Amino acid sequence: MRILIKGAAVVRRPGEGVTPAADVVVEGARFSGVFPPGEAQGEFDKVIEAEGKLLVPGFVNAHTHLAMTLFRGLAEDLALKDWLEKKIWPAERKLTGEIVYWFSLLGLVEMIRTGTTAFADMYFFMEEVGRAVEEAGLRALLSYGVIAPTPERVEPELKAAEKFAREWNGAAGGRIRTALSPHAPYTCGPEVWREAVHLAKELKIPLHTHIAETKEEVESHRERHGKSPVQWLEELGAFAVSTIAAHCVWVSEKDIDILAAHNVSVAHCPSSNLKLASGIAPAWAMLQGGVNLAIGTDGAASNNTLDMVREMRLAAILAKAKAGDSRAMPAPEALKSATQRGATALGWAKDLGAIEEGYLADCVLFDLDAVHFTPGHDPLADLVYTASGADVEMVMVGGEILMEGRNLLTLDEEKILARCRELARKFR
Amino acid sequence: MRILIKGAAVVRRPGEGVTPAADVVVEGARFSGVFPPGEAQGEFDKVIEAEGKLLVPGFVNAHTHLAMTLFRGLAEDLALKDWLEKKIWPAERKLTGEIVYWFSLLGLVEMIRTGTTAFADMYFFMEEVGRAVEEAGLRALLSYGVIAPTPERVEPELKAAEKFAREWNGAAGGRIRTALSPHAPYTCGPEVWREAVHLAKELKIPLHTHIAETKEEVESHRERHGKSPVQWLEELGAFAVSTIAAHCVWVSEKDIDILAAHNVSVAHCPSSNLKLASGIAPAWAMLQGGVNLAIGTDGAASNNTLDMVREMRLAAILAKAKAGDSRAMPAPEALKSATQRGATALGWAKDLGAIEEGYLADCVLFDLDAVHFTPGHDPLADLVYTASGADVEMVMVGGEILMEGRNLLTLDEEKILARCRELARKFR
Repeated sequence: MRILIKGAAVVRRPGEGVTPAADVVVEGARFSGVFPPGEAQGEFDKVIEAEGKLLVPGFVNAHTHLAMTLFRGLAEDLALKDWLEKKIWPAERKLTGEIVYWFSLLGLVEMIRTGTTAFADMYFFMEEVGRAVEEAGLRALLSYGVIAPTPERVEPELKAAEKFAREWNGAAGGRIRTALSPHAPYTCGPEVWREAVHLAKELKIPLHTHIAETKEEVESHRERHGKSPVQWLEELGAFAVSTIAAHCVWVSEKDIDILAAHNVSVAHCPSSNLKLASGIAPAWAMLQGGVNLAIGTDGAASNNTLDMVREMRLAAILAKAKAGDSRAMPAPEALKSATQRGATALGWAKDLGAIEEGYLADCVLFDLDAVHFTPGHDPLADLVYTASGADVEMVMVGGEILMEGRNLLTLDEEKILARCRELARKFR
Repeated sequence: MRILIKGAAVVRRPGEGVTPAADVVVEGARFSGVFPPGEAQGEFDKVIEAEGKLLVPGFVNAHTHLAMTLFRGLAEDLALKDWLEKKIWPAERKLTGEIVYWFSLLGLVEMIRTGTTAFADMYFFMEEVGRAVEEAGLRALLSYGVIAPTPERVEPELKAAEKFAREWNGAAGGRIRTALSPHAPYTCGPEVWREAVHLAKELKIPLHTHIAETKEEVESHRERHGKSPVQWLEELGAFAVSTIAAHCVWVSEKDIDILAAHNVSVAHCPSSNLKLASGIAPAWAMLQGGVNLAIGTDGAASNNTLDMVREMRLAAILAKAKAGDSRAMPAPEALKSATQRGATALGWAKDLGAIEEGYLADCVLFDLDAVHFTPGHDPLADLVYTASGADVEMVMVGGEILMEGRNLLTLDEEKILARCRELARKFR
């Protein structure tokens, strides 16, 4: 299959501006070249007319819990403790594989519609999430969330995590990779972390966890262990393997140095952190300190969308207020965090995050012919500060078109929405 | 003209939940009744089928500068001082009536598309803004922005403001009202404020100004006057007339008490305050303190959209982090600020902000049949935390339909976009 994406303005490498018009050629799963308009040679099985549109590397959602789309709007405006203990955790105990499968599909529909091509997901019934990802055509780093607050939970939880990680790594023609996910320092003790690190080394896969989401969590960790969660994990050797650390809202300068020194990727989730009143992560300080800062939506229970384009905007403007400097997190840096740095976080650093010869063909096309993109002085600023996922009209992953002209090609949206509404009625 | 909006879920009064299904009747410019499905009697000139959709009072943008759509993306990621002094102010000196007219139309297209039915605008060449509003069909409180940093500017500026305020108050069949706008305490001295208050009393119109946007502004005001801008304005008697105070990022508890005691409406502009690194206004503290907290987008130079639905979401989640409490600014309160409290701010308290018999028929219809509104446990939470302006499909102002099925009925969108692109090319 040879595809020509014709005449679009192209963000070839996020952070390096916009090429005003180019012809992009896709052969099989990869880009085979970016040419001046009209100069791409040979025959094409398909031509996508893209004049006046903007082609961007696919967005990477570095932290989510896909099937939590079930809980969107279920438990609003509560105190965090009540939200978790009275609503979310009891509801999660009633989950089934069937529910996780359908609500993962729902999340995948939303991700495709808003331009996400790859994501990191940590949840339960992960085989069902894997099946859904296989059908949808996205790229994903999947992991079973290990929660082992008591000693007797340690072995069964680790077993479940290991089983999924071994069986699904490399699935869907390599689109699915796996990780190990001790849920957090406060839900998993040292033995879980050590065993997870050991396994991650053996399987050559990363860790994906939550760190320093709330002030209370960090304070109580310091009381019990005499050090921050980041320092504690470093000393346990957790950062000896590649790690995605979601949140990192309450990190010190010393923590930031540790994260940077060990190449830990942070999945910054600004909507969720604001909505749950967790706080505002020092995103710009982390980037300035050399941390690979990616962006995530977190689950739809606390966002309540999976729209990475809107999340990128929020990350960009929130970073300025947090840093007290309107020059902080400029548009190119925000775009880089939402795409290329996310690809690095997920372990696809060499293959994803650019529209250049040899890279995997994961990309999205924005329709710029809309009032909010007018007059169009600066397409990159418009993309970061003005766009939303609703402006995405074409999505491609590994050379396969998942959405074209806003029509989904791999999933039956109507059926998925209907089935999810029915399941949600029963669940309530 | 008698219109039936049939079968929608209806937010009759923001803050009081959702009626699952109702028939809403519009006669002329006003709602004439809200009935159980199927019980509206009589003949209708038009029926809008709205089963499965959500009808909400129109959004009110309490602070913007419409024609700044020209500057969207023109001057990004700069320090605030450079942004204003090197980019925005020099650019504003090159404005013409023609530019203001066309870019106001552009802003109006964007507002209609995203569900705004009324707004407060302060700018220059206001006759041109008035013409544009007249054509578009929206409702607006318009004012000429008085900037008089030197004594010789006082008289001509006040004359211009008075002329516009007198001539346009009540225009467009009452859809346009006027205000007086000393730009800010730091750009207008006491004589301007006193004269503006005097005139506002005579004309029975409100003031619309900027207060306490940046920390530097408040600190330098305290140094020069020994009190905060809010206290200074109170002592000058400014709050003796109805006032919209944009921003109020840096207000003390005492300031909040003063704003509440004088029924000052605050136009909270969270996107602009974040993007310009001004800070985070204590929105929930103001609401809890009894302030009429409305929401505004500010101009497109610092937002960069005019989407009130997205602004409402940001206000709601940001308030929680600022207050350190995830229960702060719950969904019904955010919706109230984005609609009814905005109507109060603009001076339409008795006529706007509810879908009830006798109220002016300003309303918008959301299409809920979308993946991000599924499964739909709580339509109000979905509206506040999930929706964006792109989900609006019908907009009505005073019984006149401005958009239906996402098609604009009063404005020629294609022509406006083309003209604005051409003018922007010349402007650069």
